[in-house]
Amino acid sequence: MSIEKNYHMSSDEFRKYGYAVIDWIADYHEKNTKYPVQSQVEPGDIRKALPESAPNQGESFEEILKDMDNIILPGITHWQSPDFFGYFPANTSGPSILGELFSSGLGVQGMLWITSPACTELETRVLDWLVDMLGLPGKFKSSDTGGGVIQDSASSAALTALIAARERKNNFQSNKKGCNGKLVAYVSTQTHSSLEKAVRIAGIGEDNLHIIPVDGKFAMDAEALNHAIQEDKKAGRVPFFVCATIGTTSSNAIDPLPEIGSICKREGLWMHVDAAMSGTATICPEFRYLNNGLEYADSYAFNPHKWMFTNFDCDCFYVSDRAHLIQTLSILPEYLRNQATETGAVFDYRDWQIQLGRRFRALKLWFVIRHYGVEGLQYHIRNHISLAQQFAQWIEDSQDFEVMAPVPLNLVCFRHKSDNKKNEILLNQLNQSGKLFLTHTKLNDQFILRMVIGQTYTVKENVLKAWNLIQEFSQNL
Amino acid sequence: MSIEKNYHMSSDEFRKYGYAVIDWIADYHEKNTKYPVQSQVEPGDIRKALPESAPNQGESFEEILKDMDNIILPGITHWQSPDFFGYFPANTSGPSILGELFSSGLGVQGMLWITSPACTELETRVLDWLVDMLGLPGKFKSSDTGGGVIQDSASSAALTALIAARERKNNFQSNKKGCNGKLVAYVSTQTHSSLEKAVRIAGIGEDNLHIIPVDGKFAMDAEALNHAIQEDKKAGRVPFFVCATIGTTSSNAIDPLPEIGSICKREGLWMHVDAAMSGTATICPEFRYLNNGLEYADSYAFNPHKWMFTNFDCDCFYVSDRAHLIQTLSILPEYLRNQATETGAVFDYRDWQIQLGRRFRALKLWFVIRHYGVEGLQYHIRNHISLAQQFAQWIEDSQDFEVMAPVPLNLVCFRHKSDNKKNEILLNQLNQSGKLFLTHTKLNDQFILRMVIGQTYTVKENVLKAWNLIQEFSQNL
Repeated sequence: MSIEKNYHMSSDEFRKYGYAVIDWIADYHEKNTKYPVQSQVEPGDIRKALPESAPNQGESFEEILKDMDNIILPGITHWQSPDFFGYFPANTSGPSILGELFSSGLGVQGMLWITSPACTELETRVLDWLVDMLGLPGKFKSSDTGGGVIQDSASSAALTALIAARERKNNFQSNKKGCNGKLVAYVSTQTHSSLEKAVRIAGIGEDNLHIIPVDGKFAMDAEALNHAIQEDKKAGRVPFFVCATIGTTSSNAIDPLPEIGSICKREGLWMHVDAAMSGTATICPEFRYLNNGLEYADSYAFNPHKWMFTNFDCDCFYVSDRAHLIQTLSILPEYLRNQATETGAVFDYRDWQIQLGRRFRALKLWFVIRHYGVEGLQYHIRNHISLAQQFAQWIEDSQDFEVMAPVPLNLVCFRHKSDNKKNEILLNQLNQSGKLFLTHTKLNDQFILRMVIGQTYTVKENVLKAWNLIQEFSQNL
Repeated sequence: MSIEKNYHMSSDEFRKYGYAVIDWIADYHEKNTKYPVQSQVEPGDIRKALPESAPNQGESFEEILKDMDNIILPGITHWQSPDFFGYFPANTSGPSILGELFSSGLGVQGMLWITSPACTELETRVLDWLVDMLGLPGKFKSSDTGGGVIQDSASSAALTALIAARERKNNFQSNKKGCNGKLVAYVSTQTHSSLEKAVRIAGIGEDNLHIIPVDGKFAMDAEALNHAIQEDKKAGRVPFFVCATIGTTSSNAIDPLPEIGSICKREGLWMHVDAAMSGTATICPEFRYLNNGLEYADSYAFNPHKWMFTNFDCDCFYVSDRAHLIQTLSILPEYLRNQATETGAVFDYRDWQIQLGRRFRALKLWFVIRHYGVEGLQYHIRNHISLAQQFAQWIEDSQDFEVMAPVPLNLVCFRHKSDNKKNEILLNQLNQSGKLFLTHTKLNDQFILRMVIGQTYTVKENVLKAWNLIQEFSQNL
C-alpha cells in the first residue's frame, strides 16, 4: 500500500470484508426460509430506497453491508429457498459459489486460447467429461468432430445453433448477403419462447417459424412435422432447422427424438436439442433413455445452472461439427491475431459464441463435479425426482386435485378440480403467503400449477409442507 | 445438516473454504507480479494435466485448491497484473469481487421484475446514476424515454442496437417476415469486429456492412459516410444504422459524433455509439468533450468491466427510446405471465437483451461506485491517463521509437523505427520474457505496439519498468 490515499480496498480490508460476505452467504443459506419466498415489495419500493445520485466520496463497506440487509433483501425472491418450486430451478451450491469467486479474483478473459490457456482447456476437458457423464453421443467430444462450450444460457445456445444451421443450409451466403425470407424453422407449441426470439434476432422471421402441434402428452407430433416440411417444400420454402426438446418448460414433455431425427436426416435439416433442465437427469443411467435419438442431433444444450448446483450462467452447448460452427462465427481482426491461433492447434472460444469476451466459467462447473462426484450428483437428482413422483402420487390420491401431464422427472403439473379462476386465485394466495413459491402455465386452455422440485436444499419436509399448504389454501376457494 | 450423507458442502465447510479462497485471492493480488504475465504453457499442456474423466466420488476441497495452484495458475495470463498492458483492461477490484460473490450466493434470476424486484430496480437506479456521472444525455435515463440495462458485453450491446434499428427501419417487418437483404449498415475501417459479427448474426449480411474510410487520425470520415449513404440510396438499398466509436480498439480514435449524428438524423439512421473502454474517461469533467454529439445517439454502450474496476461481465447499454427496444425483443409465453408485468409498471429486463436469464450484476457495479465514490474513480482514471501521456512523451523523446496515432487517453500506439518484422520480434520477445504484456495492431500496414494503461493496480513504477524493458529489448533487434 502506498502512503498516498489511493481509494483501493486494501488487502487487509478485502480479507476482513471477504470473510464477512462468506459468513453472510452461509447464514443466508441456513436461514433463508425465514423470508417470504416471493418478494413482497411493490413496484418502485426498492428504487425509492436508493439515493438519486452516486456518492461523490467513497462509503464504508459496513454501510454497503447494512444496505444489503435493509434495502436489497426485501426485494429478493428467494430462488435458493428450499421452498422455491417455481419456473425452473436456478440452483447454486457451496463449491459453485467458490468457483465463481476464483473466477472473479483471477479476472481473466477467455476469448482466445492465448488470453488464458487454462480457461479454454479446462472448459474443453470438463465438457468432454460431461459427454460421458450424461451418456451423450461421442461425436460431441472435442476428440471427435464436435466439442462443447459454455454459453450464458439456453437462449444463446439456441440462437447459435440456429445461425450455424442457417449458414449450413445457405452455404454461408446469408452471412454474406443477408437472409432472404425463405428459410423455415420448426418448433412445437410447447418449445421454449427463446426460439421465437432467436428467429427474430437471426433475420429468419416469425412467419417462418412453423409451429407443430403436440400429442396428448404435449410432445411434438413427428408426423405433423413431416407433413409441414413437405408442404413448405411444395410451396418453395426451404426447411432448415428443428428444435426438439427433452423436458419442455410448461410440462416437461419429451419430444420423440428418434422420429424427429430421422426426418431431419432425410431432409437435411439441422436438429437442435434443448434439454435445458432435464438433461441433467441423464447423469443417472436409469434416465438415460431420454437421450434416445440424440445420435441424430447436430447440437445439444443443457444447463448446469438449472439443476446441477452450478450458479448462473452455465449452459453447456455441444455441436457435432465444430468446423462448421467456427466458420459461421469466426472473424479475425489484426488486434486479435496471435501465433497459437495461426497454428490451428487451439480452440478460441470466441468463435463458438455470440459475444467476444468471456469469463472463466468452467471453474465453478469443475468445482461442482469434483466436490459432489458423479455419485453425489446422482444422489440429488434421484432424490428430487423421487420427491416429485411422491408429490404426484399425493395429487393422484386426492379428491380435489388432478395431475394434468405425465411426470417423467421432477415437474408436476396439477390443478384443483374447479375452474381456471379458482386455480389462479389459489396460486396467488399461496405465493402471497410467502411460505412457498409456485408458478403456472396453461395446457389445453386450462390454468395449471407447476411444482418443480430441484432446488439444491429441497428435502422431503419442504415438499410435504408445500402439499399441506396447497390443501389448506384450497379449502377457502 | 442431516445425519444422512448428503454430499453438500456444509455451512462450516463453506465458511472455512470460503475464507481460504478469499485469502488466496488477496495473496494473488499482492504477489501476481511474480508470475510471467503471459502464460508460458504450450497448447494441450493444461488439458493433459487434467484427468480424462470425472471423479465418481467427491474429492476434498483441499485437492481442488492444490490444483488451482499446480494446474490452473500456470495456464493463466494475468490480466490483473499491474504489468498487463495488452488488449483493453478487464480490470477488477475488491468491492467488485465481493459484489459478484453476493450475486452468486443469492443466486437470483433477474429475467422479470417479479423474479427479484431488487435485481431490476437496483440496476435501473445505478444506470441512471451513471448518466449523470458520465455526463450522458438525459434522454438515456429511465425517468425519460430511455433507460439503461447491463449487457454481458459490448458485442451483445451492438447486436441488440442493430436489431432494434433494423425493426425501426422495417416497421417490425423483419421480425415477422425475416430480412430481405436490402438494409445497409455503416462502420469505419477501425470499428470493432463485433459489428461484423452482429450483421452476420442479425441476417443483414457482410456485403451490406459498408466500411467507411478514416482520416489521418483514424476517425471515421463523415463526408465519406454521407457519400456512401447517398450512393446506396441511389442504388435502391436502405441505409439504417451507423456505429460510431469513442475510442477505437486499435488506436483509441474518436469518431466525429456531431457530424455523423447530424447525417443520421437527416437520413433517419440509427446511431449506436460504442465507447467500450473510453466511455469511462468521461467521469472526469475534463474528458467530457468526448460526449459531444451524443445527443444524436439512439443507443450507447460502455463497459465498466474494462476500465471501471468492475469484473466481467458488465456492459452498460442505453437507449433513447425503450419502448422501441422492448417491442423488438418482447415475447410473453404463459409461463412468464404475472400481475406486475401486466400492469406495465415495471421493467422486465429480459425484453432488453438477447437472452432470457440474467444474474444480479448490478450489485458489483453498485459496490464499486459506492466504495470508490465518484472522486476515487476520477482519481484512478486521471492517473492512468497521466501515465499514458507520460509514456507517450518518453516515446516522443526517444530516438528509436515513434508514436503512431494520437493519444487522447490511456492507449499509446508506437513502434520501433525499423521494419514490421523487427517490431513483431520485439513484441514477442517482450511477452516471452513474462515481465510485461503488450499486444499489437496494424495501422496503415505498419505493425504497431499497443500500450494500454488501465489495470486497477498499475502505478508509475510499472510503466517505467515497461519502458526500460522495451528499450533494453530493442537493443538486440
